[in-house]
Formats: sequence, structure tokens, C-alpha cells
Amino acid sequence: METLLNNQMLHGGDYNPDQWLDRPDILKKDIELMKQAHINCVSVGIFAWSSLEPEEGHYTFEWLERVIDSLYENGIYTVLATPSGARPVWMAHKYPEVLRVDETLHRNRMGARHNHCYTSPVYREKVWEMNRRLAEAFGSHPGVLLWHISNEYGGACYCPLCQAEFRSWLKQKYGTLEALNKAWWAPFWSHTYTDWAQIEAPGPRGEQLLHGLVLDWRRFVTSRTVDFCDWEKQAIRAGGSSLPVTTNLMGFYYDLDYTKFRDVLDIASWDNYPAWRTEENDVQTAIHTAMTHDLMRCVKFAPFLMMESTPSQVNWRDVNRLKAPGLHELASLQAVAHGSNSVQYFQWRQSRGASEKFHGAVVDHYGESDTRVFGEVAHLGERLEGLAALCHSNVKPEVAILFDRENEWALDAACGPRNGAMHYEQTIESHYQAFWRMGVGVDLVCEADDLSGYKLVIAPMLYLHRAGIAAKLRSFTANGGTLIGTYWSGLVDENDLCFEGATPGEGLTEIYGLRTEEIDGLRDEDCNHMIWNGKTYQLRELCELERLSGAEQLACYSDDFYAGKPALTVNHFGSGAAYFLAARAEDAFYHDFYGMLVRQMGIRPALGSTALPDGVTAGLRLAANGTSYVTVQNFTEQLVCFPLEEPMKNLENGCIGDSVTLQPYGIMFLTK
Amino acid sequence: METLLNNQMLHGGDYNPDQWLDRPDILKKDIELMKQAHINCVSVGIFAWSSLEPEEGHYTFEWLERVIDSLYENGIYTVLATPSGARPVWMAHKYPEVLRVDETLHRNRMGARHNHCYTSPVYREKVWEMNRRLAEAFGSHPGVLLWHISNEYGGACYCPLCQAEFRSWLKQKYGTLEALNKAWWAPFWSHTYTDWAQIEAPGPRGEQLLHGLVLDWRRFVTSRTVDFCDWEKQAIRAGGSSLPVTTNLMGFYYDLDYTKFRDVLDIASWDNYPAWRTEENDVQTAIHTAMTHDLMRCVKFAPFLMMESTPSQVNWRDVNRLKAPGLHELASLQAVAHGSNSVQYFQWRQSRGASEKFHGAVVDHYGESDTRVFGEVAHLGERLEGLAALCHSNVKPEVAILFDRENEWALDAACGPRNGAMHYEQTIESHYQAFWRMGVGVDLVCEADDLSGYKLVIAPMLYLHRAGIAAKLRSFTANGGTLIGTYWSGLVDENDLCFEGATPGEGLTEIYGLRTEEIDGLRDEDCNHMIWNGKTYQLRELCELERLSGAEQLACYSDDFYAGKPALTVNHFGSGAAYFLAARAEDAFYHDFYGMLVRQMGIRPALGSTALPDGVTAGLRLAANGTSYVTVQNFTEQLVCFPLEEPMKNLENGCIGDSVTLQPYGIMFLTK
Amino acid sequence: METLLNNQMLHGGDYNPDQWLDRPDILKKDIELMKQAHINCVSVGIFAWSSLEPEEGHYTFEWLERVIDSLYENGIYTVLATPSGARPVWMAHKYPEVLRVDETLHRNRMGARHNHCYTSPVYREKVWEMNRRLAEAFGSHPGVLLWHISNEYGGACYCPLCQAEFRSWLKQKYGTLEALNKAWWAPFWSHTYTDWAQIEAPGPRGEQLLHGLVLDWRRFVTSRTVDFCDWEKQAIRAGGSSLPVTTNLMGFYYDLDYTKFRDVLDIASWDNYPAWRTEENDVQTAIHTAMTHDLMRCVKFAPFLMMESTPSQVNWRDVNRLKAPGLHELASLQAVAHGSNSVQYFQWRQSRGASEKFHGAVVDHYGESDTRVFGEVAHLGERLEGLAALCHSNVKPEVAILFDRENEWALDAACGPRNGAMHYEQTIESHYQAFWRMGVGVDLVCEADDLSGYKLVIAPMLYLHRAGIAAKLRSFTANGGTLIGTYWSGLVDENDLCFEGATPGEGLTEIYGLRTEEIDGLRDEDCNHMIWNGKTYQLRELCELERLSGAEQLACYSDDFYAGKPALTVNHFGSGAAYFLAARAEDAFYHDFYGMLVRQMGIRPALGSTALPDGVTAGLRLAANGTSYVTVQNFTEQLVCFPLEEPMKNLENGCIGDSVTLQPYGIMFLTK
Repeated sequence: METLLNNQMLHGGDYNPDQWLDRPDILKKDIELMKQAHINCVSVGIFAWSSLEPEEGHYTFEWLERVIDSLYENGIYTVLATPSGARPVWMAHKYPEVLRVDETLHRNRMGARHNHCYTSPVYREKVWEMNRRLAEAFGSHPGVLLWHISNEYGGACYCPLCQAEFRSWLKQKYGTLEALNKAWWAPFWSHTYTDWAQIEAPGPRGEQLLHGLVLDWRRFVTSRTVDFCDWEKQAIRAGGSSLPVTTNLMGFYYDLDYTKFRDVLDIASWDNYPAWRTEENDVQTAIHTAMTHDLMRCVKFAPFLMMESTPSQVNWRDVNRLKAPGLHELASLQAVAHGSNSVQYFQWRQSRGASEKFHGAVVDHYGESDTRVFGEVAHLGERLEGLAALCHSNVKPEVAILFDRENEWALDAACGPRNGAMHYEQTIESHYQAFWRMGVGVDLVCEADDLSGYKLVIAPMLYLHRAGIAAKLRSFTANGGTLIGTYWSGLVDENDLCFEGATPGEGLTEIYGLRTEEIDGLRDEDCNHMIWNGKTYQLRELCELERLSGAEQLACYSDDFYAGKPALTVNHFGSGAAYFLAARAEDAFYHDFYGMLVRQMGIRPALGSTALPDGVTAGLRLAANGTSYVTVQNFTEQLVCFPLEEPMKNLENGCIGDSVTLQPYGIMFLTK
Repeated sequence: METLLNNQMLHGGDYNPDQWLDRPDILKKDIELMKQAHINCVSVGIFAWSSLEPEEGHYTFEWLERVIDSLYENGIYTVLATPSGARPVWMAHKYPEVLRVDETLHRNRMGARHNHCYTSPVYREKVWEMNRRLAEAFGSHPGVLLWHISNEYGGACYCPLCQAEFRSWLKQKYGTLEALNKAWWAPFWSHTYTDWAQIEAPGPRGEQLLHGLVLDWRRFVTSRTVDFCDWEKQAIRAGGSSLPVTTNLMGFYYDLDYTKFRDVLDIASWDNYPAWRTEENDVQTAIHTAMTHDLMRCVKFAPFLMMESTPSQVNWRDVNRLKAPGLHELASLQAVAHGSNSVQYFQWRQSRGASEKFHGAVVDHYGESDTRVFGEVAHLGERLEGLAALCHSNVKPEVAILFDRENEWALDAACGPRNGAMHYEQTIESHYQAFWRMGVGVDLVCEADDLSGYKLVIAPMLYLHRAGIAAKLRSFTANGGTLIGTYWSGLVDENDLCFEGATPGEGLTEIYGLRTEEIDGLRDEDCNHMIWNGKTYQLRELCELERLSGAEQLACYSDDFYAGKPALTVNHFGSGAAYFLAARAEDAFYHDFYGMLVRQMGIRPALGSTALPDGVTAGLRLAANGTSYVTVQNFTEQLVCFPLEEPMKNLENGCIGDSVTLQPYGIMFLTK
Repeated sequence: METLLNNQMLHGGDYNPDQWLDRPDILKKDIELMKQAHINCVSVGIFAWSSLEPEEGHYTFEWLERVIDSLYENGIYTVLATPSGARPVWMAHKYPEVLRVDETLHRNRMGARHNHCYTSPVYREKVWEMNRRLAEAFGSHPGVLLWHISNEYGGACYCPLCQAEFRSWLKQKYGTLEALNKAWWAPFWSHTYTDWAQIEAPGPRGEQLLHGLVLDWRRFVTSRTVDFCDWEKQAIRAGGSSLPVTTNLMGFYYDLDYTKFRDVLDIASWDNYPAWRTEENDVQTAIHTAMTHDLMRCVKFAPFLMMESTPSQVNWRDVNRLKAPGLHELASLQAVAHGSNSVQYFQWRQSRGASEKFHGAVVDHYGESDTRVFGEVAHLGERLEGLAALCHSNVKPEVAILFDRENEWALDAACGPRNGAMHYEQTIESHYQAFWRMGVGVDLVCEADDLSGYKLVIAPMLYLHRAGIAAKLRSFTANGGTLIGTYWSGLVDENDLCFEGATPGEGLTEIYGLRTEEIDGLRDEDCNHMIWNGKTYQLRELCELERLSGAEQLACYSDDFYAGKPALTVNHFGSGAAYFLAARAEDAFYHDFYGMLVRQMGIRPALGSTALPDGVTAGLRLAANGTSYVTVQNFTEQLVCFPLEEPMKNLENGCIGDSVTLQPYGIMFLTK
């Protein structure tokens, strides 16, 4: 099993045999079809609590044992889930406290999933017992590969128990109310706390404007969730299993800071559902998905698993489109290109009822293998078998973009120049797309991460400083790194309290050679412009006015009363350089600007100096032994063909060639 | 009284003298004005509870007796209402349980109307007593024509009493929890019920994704409402009255399945408020209204009453337009053309206060008869007197369109290719408009209805199968009928559980000669195309991919990766033919396609082969004695003139002619 | 102090030293910077309760004394606030009853500000004690100028105590339930009250359609708020202070009828935050702001204070733009032109944390005076010192527009031809803009005000009659005044009960020489037209049909079935004239129509017959001694230059000239 995890691309998906326990014919057919589809692992038991413990204290694991045995006998491994993602009806009915209380302070009723309190002693005890017993029963089964803890953690609970935990968490953080009052600027609107018991979670009928409180509550929710995940893991360990654990994350999910899961998880995994074919073309969707893979890889800076994806279409968007032929294979292998060691689906077989009955599945209600979707899945399974060599390689970029969840929470809540429309993630994506189009790899790092290994660090809208980020940026630049800063940076400390004096704060004015003076919030329909290198670029949404103190002006505003003031500057600091962009530019600017930097700095794209056609990118996975695997991906509906800088070998068919030809939605793996 | 109901078109409206009991001058003037306006009946007492029982147990029917007497003495009949549509303040204050609990489980306070629990024993007892006493007092009054039970039933109550009734209803339906769990696919997300007490109504803070539960709750709400309506009727019968009963329905009102009222009501009636003059022109509004009349007629497949309509404008839309001269008469007689034996208004006299004080009325605050509105009403009243012959005729179409409320509930909730935008009713209307434009009558039938009497049955988006519909469609087609099926059909059984195997399920694949494979959900701005009979038609929103097994392809997709695959097919089955449309087409297609079928099948339009100008339609009422009454309606603002196939007689003036000339918004009645 | 208030323009702003009590360096620097900025007064203590009474009964006024002393020693006066705008956390925690209950009947939790019950005996007692003690401590301090009671009163409380007060208020108003039932037209939907205890405030889960109840609740909320404000004032008086009091109002704030504050306040003041630079140009924003100043001046028909404004940008709109150079000075002095005797800011120094940390301030986080904003504030301060002469003058127009808050509440709630889109305030503004563009002053008066001093009274959409308005309009017109009436007028009495008989009611048919028959609600995209004086004007939204009885038709509708019917009429009544406009016209019509009237009637614009360029206006303040001060304002980004009718003197530099030259965003003060 270690073998499989390390030496083979996983190909599988969520499998819910507990929905078919009265249908042995179906269970038998599943195994046959899985083999046809080149499936080597399935995720079992994700929402199976009511089948595993149908009444309190009465455990019925026999069916699960039969399923795992039968899969293993047929060469298919099990990713075994803890069932905590949904509690059984009897539990909710007997112990309402396991249900979540929402921000209006009303307790939910039984329903949906992910509807439980992470603090409830009853829920914690029930989960502990279930996980421990599962670990005892299956933790050493040779067919079990990995633990899939719960499912898509998310949301928050506002019950009295959680609020009490929040107060304890604050007490530990701040020590005294005096410190807390100061950090939250509590005298504003007479909000000074004089007793810990006065503190409540933010909410629609209570406090929402004390930004420090709001930010701390978000941090607490992540802390509570990580703690619960760790509790689940410890129960598994208490059951005697030392198998690796993961939990399926959700990409850019807003309400959790996933970097805090790094130490709990052995492997990162995530559920990938791009909105293919819902934009004018698929290039922007491909870029967004690529960036998300990179974010998930950086949870542990290691290969990850794509734990879910749909083999055809989803059923929960407003409009749910089919994938054109080829797109499924491309989208699946895009994950591999960015560091995934798996392609897994939700789900193996369509459920007959309830809300996911029309979600795409490998086997649909028709139930046979002579469908387009089944055929494409089986073909991909075969292809994955030929890509085992990539398992031991990883993506190792020279470029890092700072994306910090706490920074995002703070700047979204801040009440500033554009409320509800600061577009932090879109801004990150605007910078990112320039590198994707060049085939240059990027890590998405947070403020707590080490920056010393990169050549180029981009820090858009670094509003909030934490984790010593200013000092790290200083030494990074002083030691020869190239730093990119922008408007709306260096404004507040880790508690969202404004820096006094010139900003960007904590000495960044010195690094950038300027200070910020004012910032204009533009309406969606307005724009300004700058001319750089002879080209005119639109500037939108946020235009900051800078006063230079050493920086060199590279471009200036063309319009409005601040025409002529600097829009782009550079400052030489130590052995490095710090660029500063005063306004949000259109994508074309980032493309041209970073193209210039990549050339100047000697950053090497995956395909070197080869010019990539629009909609085509290339990625690089490096093996420990130095082998490079280059993946070339065509997200257009056209056949593309272009020459290579030097001849390369097609990893799958062994052919060596000096050009690339890709079918519409084609993808190929090259090596030297 | 039986006489009037059967031999005369009713002309009247809601009359609320209880709002003017301190104004005998007004009550006297009302009678005078009614006579001027050719009013022969009024609906009295609809919200009069606080005047009929001003304090608990103290009944004050004297004023009502005086009103009924006085009307009768002046030749005006009374449609007598039970006042249950709004409870008096004292009752809500003393017995809060009579007020409704909403889906968030909060009980309403006193306010509005239709705000009461259908289960509450107190409310049922009070209603019984009131209705019984009214029946005793007025059930044999010669001036009373008909019972108007309550008013516009709607909504649902989620109180504990209703939820207990829901559990009883489920127990009766399913017998065992095992059967219920299977029907609802409850193991999904561990939702297996182990005790009946665990079951709760769906709601925003509880379960909303178990589709079987959601669907059963909707069925239960209809069942509860019908049961309450029957309770009201039984109280009337207990009071000794055997007069016919009706309740005013609301056309396409979403939350009730009106077909379930068939056995309780003696006559169907409904409230008709088209949005005239709020679209580019009134043709689409006319079509929608025509279709709604047909739906209401098919509640009992018999002539019905148009119980409410506005003599001028309403006051509850965002924008409330005046009717141009003539439009009121046309819109009123359109109802008659579709089977109504009445034109009735809300309301006779404008209230001086509260939310309906600016709703149109025959007599407005000005209070005199020298207004445009009063004049038009009076003229219409005169005209209705000349149309008495139509009372004994009915509309008897050869074409049926399947519109099934349970199917709609299920497909709207289903989470599929386009969520919240399946547009079932609009689709029904797209098919319907083709017949309206040709002057071909249509019944709107549900899956439980008998199909054997039709030549052509159209079953758009027949997602859910119930009431043996598959077998009925099979024998209908086998016996020579022409069946039209479409995408998104035959997917689930009556509990919204997907059919296993090929679909359309239950053997419809054989009838259509194909099976469905995949379905693409298109964005609003996207489209595909097909060419049929040399013309190109847009396809939108839903494009299904079919695999043919016997069907003949009549047209195929032009675009996207499924270009060339079948979009329209026909299959010969038994002595009949089954057409299948794989995608939603633009209206022009239905017009051309059904035009071809009508000609081929020998279905006879009301005016035979006469080509109707755009915006003009013709309807047909057939008397038991074989007389045909053809109504020609002009919904344009232009004068229209066109030749007839054969000379016909104008029913109102006796003239015989071989052409039709209609004023803008004109309508005429022809016979042979 | 009286001296300053009367003889000098105030220049200052909100100052919150309680947020900086641990920073004596900041407090010291504040004084220095204030002097640099020509600040002569600051508003202190607005939300300082937790610093003034950090625990119950423990008062800590020492810091406040030091602040007032220190300011006074430096020539800066204090506007002293009562801190009731936000209660301290300890109070909310110990006495939850001080927190407000919202319309869903849930009590708020501690949070935000303005979140307290105006009825709560505990809150009233705490406020009384606080205000009384503040008055004792500082009421005779020579540095204290004025009391700033609370802050931006608003909202409503639905707690049981407030509802009981509402019932008392109703009992006092109506005497008997019979009278109340009649006034509210309660028999409608059986809503007859039989016990005072049955009456509840309107709300989403209760009654919302009984318009009389809804209107009376709104009146009660104003009454409660005024009562609370008076309670605060009486506490100050009980503390021995006889200084004048104000409270900062909010312009067109919807939920209060500010005219009811007239008797409680000694001076009117308000907070002015125009949305500069968020429209295509600033002219419409300038007009709206001008009108709001006029409305606020008419609270007391006397000079007022602009208590708050931002020195740069706000941070609470969706998009928050910078002011271009000059705009701050123009916007500030626009207030003076309309009658303000001050320019005050929110706030002096930016808070370091919480929701207003990025709201513009004179001193921002940077903390120094070398910013654009500080420079502009200081320059304006200097300029204000030269305008002291205006303090004793006031604006005294010949034109009044009737804007009545109770009328607005009633017509917005009424359910009529266009729901949620009656646009009363926009309509007022359409009439107003015509005068602004001509440089003619306007008062905005309510129905209770005296009309006898005006030449021209405009009464748009005078839906509800109260305060004897019909009689006043009659005598105004009879005595030679010119009256302008419009569609949707004279429909209901003061309880929103429709007049019986012809309308406009109460005899206005006689004054206008017509009665209204019907009204058409147009969609946003529709329009009609009229031709007047050879020009065609669009008519939109509301088109009323009139029957003339003496009036002369001046223009008629061009389109729809009412083409040819009167759209504009005039009637001679007594020595006056009454015009009637049957439909909503485009702005150009008002401009042309009132231009004609102004010329005909001899109303004199501030600059006489001088034609003002587009975007430029002129205002007039008249001193008791007869001196005229004319303010010329340029709201365009262009330099403008135009000749004067006669030479005038520039008040600030003494130069006399016969033309005006204004920089972009320039403003100048002229006198003869």
C-alpha cells in the first residue's frame, strides 16, 4: 500500500456501497466495471455513519469489511473515511447539542451535512469512538491505503460552548483585557470590555464593526476546525493505525486558513470542480484551476491528491455543462502537471435519490459501460498507469506570490476605498496568469512561509503584516531578491490596527523608496491609464498616490487630478530591487512586465524560450534524481503546433521530436 | 337560483357591505348602481368574520340578512362566502394557535389574511360553527346561489400539530420506515430514519436536500388544504345547505396541486389578473391567460366561473397600468370563450383604507357612475345578457398538453442541468402558443387524467412518472394517437427516485425508439441550432444527446461537439407515432411543427383553414345539442379584417357574413 | 462663547481624545495641529461613555476636564456631547433591556451604536444621570459653546415597553377603539380591534397592510425620539446648564420627521456627506446637497451648523473617491451659502482601529501636517475667518416647495400605480433643480408650515392632507399666490383614508378647476409626451387623466389612448393662479416652466437677470441690516467667466468688478 501511494498514480473516486447494501448484483457489477475503468483505489464510508452505527452503540462494520475485502481481492485499494461529515438522524434527535448554532444564534435542525459543533463533548466522544473502532478494525487491513478524515470541513458554530472556547482562546492570546481592548481599539464607540464574559462572537444582531474581533473570530474558527481534525486523527492513532491521514480541502474556500492544517495532515488533498465551458473560452478557467492546484500543493509544499473531480458535469451550479471530448483528460492531467499524484472522482456510481442524483459519476443510472463518460475514464486510467514515474517528482518554482488568507479576511472587512469589491483573489490571479502564459511555475505562499529560496516575490495588496513579514521582505530584497509591492500595502498590524506614521509600514517605505499618501476608489466604469515601455495600460478600481523618497518613476498616471504622479516605480535596496505598482492594472500589463523581469532575471520557463500559443501552457515537475518532466497543455479547441527549443522525448510513447503538436484539449508529457 | 347559474352568464363581483355598515346611504346607492351596471350577482362576506362574530360566541348575522334580502328584492343574487380567509383579531389574540407557523418555525402574529393553521382544532371548531350557522341561516334563502368557500387558499403551516399530521400521512403512505428510507434514498448523507418521530418538515434550518421528503411535504400541504376545504363544505352540509360549493383558485399558483380539489368542489372558479400592457404587446399576455383559463377549466373539465378580475387596474404589481378602451371587454369575454360562465370583479366598491384602497373597482372613491370604468362594465353587462346561450356549451379539444404540478415540483427541486431555471411552465406555454395562434383548443391535463379521448398528446419534460402514465402513453400511442415527448423525460418514479437502466424509463425508450445519454445545460446567452424542413431554429437552455434505436432522425444539432446528433426524431409505434424533441426550441419551431401536425392529422381549428392574423385567435364552445359557438378575439391595437372559410352568423346581432372585422381589442361570437 | 457662536464661522470637527488617553504626545500634537489648521471648536465626547463611566456609578470626568481646559487655553472651544449614542459594554451586559428590539421582535446584542431603547427606564435613568453630571461639571466652563445631544438619532425599538407606549399614544390620539377602527378602516380583512391590548406594532411577521397603523407607528417613532431628545435636554437643564442645544440630523433621513424637533432644538445642525465624483459630473450631487441644506435650514428657518463632513473621502460607500483639489473648499462653503454658520468635520484624527479607521480625517495615520488634505483644511479655515460677516444673515426665499415627510411615508406605503417607485424625493428634486440653475432660493416646507410669506408654492404629489393644508392652499391662492399642483394629490386624509367624492379632495378641485379620473402607472422604459410652448417634453412613470371644470388646458398628452387629454392646465382662483401638472415631466420642462413663472412673477434670482452657465449657481444670504451676500458657485471642472448685471464687490478681497471669473470648483462671495 505504501507502494501504491508512492509508485503509482491513484485513479479512483468516492464509492458509497452503503447506499446499495440490498443490491448484491450492483456491488458485484461495480467491481467488474472498476477493473474495466482501470480504477486502483476508491474512497469508502464518507457519509456512512448510519450504516456503521445504525443505533447508538450498535456498530455494524461487517458490510464494510466485505467491501474492503472484495475490493482488495480485485486489486483495488481503499481510502477509508471517518464518517463525521454527517451525523446519523438518531444522534441529532437524541443530542441536539451536536447540531450547529448559526450566527443568528439559532440552532440548526437535523439536515444536510457538515452541520455539527466542533466543540460539543458528545459529538467529540461519538467521533472518537467511531474513529478508534474503525482504526482497530481496518487500520492494518492490507487493502487500506490512507485515512480520509471527515469531508470538506467548513462553516462555524456559534453555540455557547464554542463561544466559551473563543473567550479562552482570546484569554490565552491577549492575557489581559487591557491588551485586548487596545488591540481591538475598543474605546471606539464605547466598546471597552471590562469582563471577559462580555465578549461575544460577531454576528448580525451584535457586533460586526470591531474589526479586531471579527478577525480573531475567523482565526478562532480555523483553530477550532484544525483542533477537531486533529482530534479525529488522534482517535485513529488511538485505534492503533499509523496510516497517513488527509482531509479533502476546497481550494480557495474562504472561511478557513488551510495553511494551519499543514502539521495535522500527512498528505494534502482537495476537491477540484472547475466551471469548464461557462466562460467565453476555457483559458481563464484553466488559469484559475492551475493557481488553485498550486495553492493546494503549497499546503505542504509536496505532491498532493486530487481527491474529487467530476467525470462529466456537476449538478450544483446554475448551469451545468457537459465536457467536450478530451476536456476530461486534459483537466485531470492538469492536476498531475501541478503536483497531484492522483485523479479521483465524485462519485463512482450515481445515487438514485436526493440532491446529488444527477451529479456526474463514472457509472450513471443507465448502469452500463458503453457510455462516452465511462470510455473516457477508462482511457485516462490506462494513461495514468504510464505516468507512474512522475510520482517521485515535485513542482519547485523560482517565483512566489504572497497569498495570505488572514490578510484577505482583514482587507475584505476593512471599510476602505472600495467595499465588497477589493478583489484580492482576482488580483492574485492577474499576477499569476502572466506566469501561466509563459510556462513559469509559481508557489502561492503565506506570510508565515520562508521566502529565502525564491528569486522573485510578488506581494500584492499586502495590507496586513504578520509573522515578521516586513523583516523577511527586507532581508529577501537586501540579499538580492526582486520584490514587487502594490497599492494598499503595509497598512495594519496583525490585529488590523493601523500603523502610525508613513506607510507601507514597518520600514517598507525605505525598501520601496516612497510613502503612500491617498487612495482613490474608482467606480467599475471608471479608469485611469499609464504608459510604460511605449504601451498604454488601463488602471482600474484603486489608484494610490505616492510621494517618492528615492524610488525611480517608471510610469505615471495619465488622467484625473493626479495625472503625472507615479504609477510604477523601482527602488534599489541592498543587492535587490523593489518595484511598486500604485494602481490595479489590466492583465496585459502583468504579462508584459513579468515577461521583462523573467528575461532579465534569468528565470527559466518550463519550455525555455519557446513562445507558447495563447491558451497553451507548460509545467515542470522535477524528480529527486534531477529528471525534468514537462507537461504541455492545450486549453483551446484548436489544434496547436509549435517548435521546441531543443528536441524532447514524449514520456508516453518514447518518441523524440523537436516540435509539439497538440489536439484540441490535448496534453502531453515530455522529458529530455 | 339554479336557473341563474345554468341559464345566464353571471355578472358581478366581491361586495363588502360590512365595511360600510354605518353608511346606509352608500348601501342604498350600491343597489341602484348595480342595477345600472347589469349586475346579477355579488359575492358577500368574504372577510366579514369580525362583523359576523364580533366577540367570541356572539353572532350578528342581522346585517347580512338585510343585505341578502335587499339584493334579492332588486334581482341580484348572492354568492355567499365563508369568512375563513381571515380570522378576527380577538381570535388570534385569545388563541394564538390559530395563527400559522412558517418554515423557520416561528409563529406569525396577527396580521394580513390566509394566516391560519389548517390543523388547529380551535380554528377548525370555530370555522365549523361559523359555516354551519351561516348555512342554517342562509342556506335556503332564495337569493343565495352558491357557496364561496374561504378565499384563495394558499401557503402552509409548520406548527407541531401540522408536523404530527405529516408524520401520520407518511405512515399511511409508506407503512414502514424501511419503505420510506428506500423511497427517499435516505442512506445518502446518513439520513436513515429510525423512528417516525425523527421526521420533520423541510425547512431552511433543517433538511432541504432529501428530494423525496420535499416532494412529500408539498403533497401533504395540498392534502391538508383540500381536507380543510372539505371540512368547510361538510360544515355547510351539516347546516342543511345543499347548494353547490366552489372556492376561488389562482391559476398557476405554484404551491397547490389544484387537480386534487376536483372531488370537493361542485364548480371550479378562479381569480384572473393578467398583466395587460406590461409587455411589448398584449399577445403573450393573452396566450398566458388563455392557457390559464384552460388549466382552470380542466380542474373539472366543465364550465367554470371567473370569480375575480379587475374592472380597471390592480394595485399590487410593481407597475399598474390602465386598460385601454375595449380591453376590459375583450379580456372579460376571453374567459367566456375558454369556458367561463361568468365575469366577476374584485371589487364592487373601493375600500376607503388599507392595502386595497387603490385596487380597481366598479365604483371608485369618486362614487358616481359617470366614469369610463363604470360605463365599460355596464356595457359589458348588457352584452353578457345576450350570451346566455353559451351557458350550456363547453370547450372540448382534441389536443392535450400534459402539465403536472407534482412533476413541476420535482423537476424544479431536482438539482440538474439548470438549477432554478428549468422553465417548465414557460415550456408548456411555448407548446401551447402554437395552438392558440391557430385557433385550436387545448386541454391541460395531469398524469392522472384519462388521455384516451385525444388525438394529440404533448408531454414536455415529463420528468416524473406517476399514476401509470407510462402505460397510458403506451396504449394511447399504440392505439393510434400521436405523442410528443421531449428532453428531460422519464427520469424518476413518483418518489423522485431515478429509474435504473435506459431512459425515458418504464419502456418509453421503446415508444420513442431511442434512449437518452447526456444532457447539456446551456447558459442563457448560449444556443445551438437545428434545421428542419429547410428552416433553422434556435435551441436553448437544454440540449439532450440521444442514441437512436429505431427512431428516424428528422433534424440534428448544428453546433458544438454534438453537431450531427439527433435533435428531432419520430418513431412509429403500434398504430401511432411518437415524436421526440431533444432540445428546447424557439417558439417559431412549435408553430411550424404543430401546424404541420394539425394539417396532417385533420385536427380542426375553430375557424377551419382560415389563416388568423397575428394576435388574433378563435375559440370553440360546443353545446350538448351540437351547436358550435366560435369566439374570435383580437388582442392587437389594430383593426383586423379577414375572410371566413364559410359564412357564419354573429350571435349577438344575428348578421351573417363571410368575413370578420374586429375593432382594436374587439371580440365577436359566431355560430353557423 | 455666545460671541463665537454668533460672530464667527465655526471651523472644527469631531475630536475623540478618549481613544488616545495613553498617548499624551498625541494629545499635545493635536492642539498644535489644530492651531495650524485654524480650528476654533471641536466636538468632544460623542461616544465616550466607557471613558466617562468605566464602571457603573464610577464617573471619571478628569480627562475630559483636562481636554476642555487645554483646548480653551489654546483658543479652541468645545461642543460638548452627551454620550448616549453608544452605551458602554458593561451596561448592555448588565441591563439587556437597554438594547433595542427589532421589527422581528428579537432583541439585539451588544454591538454597533444607536442600539438602545428610547423607552427603557434604566437607559433613561443612566442618560439623565450622565447628562446632569456633565452639565454640572462643564455647563459653565467658559470653553464650552454648545451641547451636542447624542448622535444621529435613528431607528426604532419594538420592545414590549415601546409597544405599550405606542398603545398609550394611540389611546390619547383616538380616544376610542371605534374611532381607531374607523380611521384605520379596520373591518378590511376582519381587522377590527376590540381591545387596546390587541394592537401591535407593524412588522414582517404581523400586520403590514393596515396603512393607518403603519403610518401611526412611524409618527410614534418620531414622537418617541423627540421625547428622548427632550429628556436629554431636560437632564442638561437639571444640571444647571442653559447653553443652547443641538443634535446632528441627517438630511433626508427617511425614518424621522425632523420638523418635530423644531421646538426641542435651539440650533439645527446636520451631517453632510455628498457622493462627490460618483456621477457623470458633480452638478446633480451639488443640487441634491443644496436642497438638503435648504431642508435642514427650514427645520428652524434659521442659520444652522454643518456639524459633520469629511475633509477628504468617506469609507462607507461602495466606492469612495478622493475629492479633486478645490472641491473640498467649494463643498464646504456651499453649506455657508445655504445658511450654515460652520464647517465641521468627522473627524479630527483617524482612529487606529475599527470600522472608521479609513474614514477621512484632518490628520491621518501618517500624523503630520504636510498632506494635501491638511493643507486644504487649513486654507479653508483661514478663509472662513474672513466670512464672519455672514453669521448674522439668513436665506429668505420667495419660493417654497412642499416636502412633507408624513406625506412621503403614506404615499410610499400606499399600494398604488407604481409600488416602491413613486420617487417622491426625486420629484421634489426635479422641481428644485430648476430654481438652483436660475440662482433662485427655495424653502422646503411641510404641510404644517405657514405659506403666507411666499409668492410661489409648489406642492408635488400632495397625496395626504393634514394640518389644514387645503385651507391654507385655498387662502394662499385666493390672496394672489401662485400654486403648482400635480398628479397623485389630495387623495387621503391624515389617516390615509381616501376622500369620498371628487379629488384632489377638500375643495382643491375648485382651486385647480378639474378633477382626477384615473392614473396610469408606466414602466420605467415607457413614456408619453406633451408639447408646451412649442417644445416637446417626455412624461414618465405616472400619467393622470383629468376632467376639466374651469381650468384652461395648456398642454395635452401626445400618445396612448389618452392622447389629447390635458397634461398641463391653469385655473384662476381669487387673485391667484393654480397650475396643475398631470404627469411627471423630464427636468427640462421644470426648467422652462419655472423660468417662465419666475420672469412673469418678478421673483428675483440672486444675480438678477444674469444667465448662469451650466453647473454654476448663485445663492443669497440677507442680513438684518439689509446687506445682501451673494455666493457664486462653480461645480464644473472648467474655468467659467460671465458678466454681471451690475458691478459687485468681492467680500473677501474687496475688489469691485462687473464680471465673475471662477476657477474649476471655485466659489466667491459678492456684495454690493
